[in-house]
Amino acid sequence: MIDRIYTAGLVVIGDEILSGRTHDKNIAQIASWLQVQGIRLSEVRVVPDVIERIVEAVDALREANDYLFTTGGIGPTHDDITVDAVAQALGVPVIIHPEARAILEKYYTDKGGLNEGRLRMARTPEGAELIPNRMSGAPGIRIGNVYLMAGVPHITAGMLDALTGTLEGGAPLIAETVGGFIPESEVSGLLREVEKAHENCQIGSYPFFREGRVGSNFVIRSTDRADLDACMAELCKGLEEAGFAYTRGGI
Amino acid sequence: MIDRIYTAGLVVIGDEILSGRTHDKNIAQIASWLQVQGIRLSEVRVVPDVIERIVEAVDALREANDYLFTTGGIGPTHDDITVDAVAQALGVPVIIHPEARAILEKYYTDKGGLNEGRLRMARTPEGAELIPNRMSGAPGIRIGNVYLMAGVPHITAGMLDALTGTLEGGAPLIAETVGGFIPESEVSGLLREVEKAHENCQIGSYPFFREGRVGSNFVIRSTDRADLDACMAELCKGLEEAGFAYTRGGI
Repeated sequence: MIDRIYTAGLVVIGDEILSGRTHDKNIAQIASWLQVQGIRLSEVRVVPDVIERIVEAVDALREANDYLFTTGGIGPTHDDITVDAVAQALGVPVIIHPEARAILEKYYTDKGGLNEGRLRMARTPEGAELIPNRMSGAPGIRIGNVYLMAGVPHITAGMLDALTGTLEGGAPLIAETVGGFIPESEVSGLLREVEKAHENCQIGSYPFFREGRVGSNFVIRSTDRADLDACMAELCKGLEEAGFAYTRGGI
Repeated sequence: MIDRIYTAGLVVIGDEILSGRTHDKNIAQIASWLQVQGIRLSEVRVVPDVIERIVEAVDALREANDYLFTTGGIGPTHDDITVDAVAQALGVPVIIHPEARAILEKYYTDKGGLNEGRLRMARTPEGAELIPNRMSGAPGIRIGNVYLMAGVPHITAGMLDALTGTLEGGAPLIAETVGGFIPESEVSGLLREVEKAHENCQIGSYPFFREGRVGSNFVIRSTDRADLDACMAELCKGLEEAGFAYTRGGI
């Protein structure tokens, strides 16, 4: 039986990532979280704060995947245009979401109250639900299969936490690692043959330089524990026969 | 006079990024390097080790930009398929590049010599030039406007170093920052108006939480120093009038 595979796309929105000013942390954070939900991150696009570019990326990835996440561009300033872009992609108007407005009114009560910028964060595409934000005022937004998250990583972390267990996924991809001071270029034939013999498994090879020596970690991924174990056993046997010391779990 | 703007796309290739196992460092590294070359990173796509997906991303971004960079998938193992994907996208065959073969033969002389996996790293699309690799054996590859770089960040750093000053670019985008414990939601109107008054400048707003307080850094970007200075002066004047303390250079 082949399990249905669930996939997600991610659109990272922001000039600050493309200029190199900010090092993105959301790709790795969302990728790891999706793995646990049984959903594979299938593609990421990083686009600038330009509405047409966001619309194009959102349209391409929401259609190709079960889920689409976006990060960035949902704050109070003029460069926060993700809501407008997603509404345009979905062909719905932007509204002031009553529940979001109430949340923001409460959050800003002793901080000077709502103003034009703060009210921007109550805007959603029509038909949206809110994603709780445990760290600050402005909520995330879900509409259809599109999830709009914050750009600030710890705020996104809280939103992911609120979504945990709510998205339908498949069997999680499990992974096991074996590594050592093994040049990948000396075992490339072995890796290819072992992967070919285990069709439910993928083997990734991740070389490194450490303590002046060349080494690699080999990661086997599968949705099936028995297949993964068999693949790992054969890889370890092959490494042993080739005379390499290795460590289960990787080094 | 409007300067010609040069742009680049980046395709990051690798299941390890999409699984969350590896935190990408190449996006920020290449973004920063491109800024100095006077080239704007216009879009990034992260795709898995699947040939059709790489071809699709390469095709889309090489046509939309002056330059296209790829990272990852140029090593010796079965999951290293970037050369094949780029050759397919360009409609040229894959050859063993004589110069690359010579480099690898020399590099592996006292490391057991060439084998099938190592020889994979001498494969290039026909018509390619090599990009020197100062850190290890296998070179990067340039063909047309496409630059194939390593996945390991310090190897890519060496390749970028070798390319410094060789790509035609425009006026570099300069950036200045001003920041403080200023909630961006209290100055969103000011930011929008100042940006509107300086059409050659973009203002980005980057909120943070620190020491239990809310603050923001505002980054003004422009290719013109005089415009940028005028925009910065007006923004600082506005912050002052609104009663906020700020620090030039950001906090």
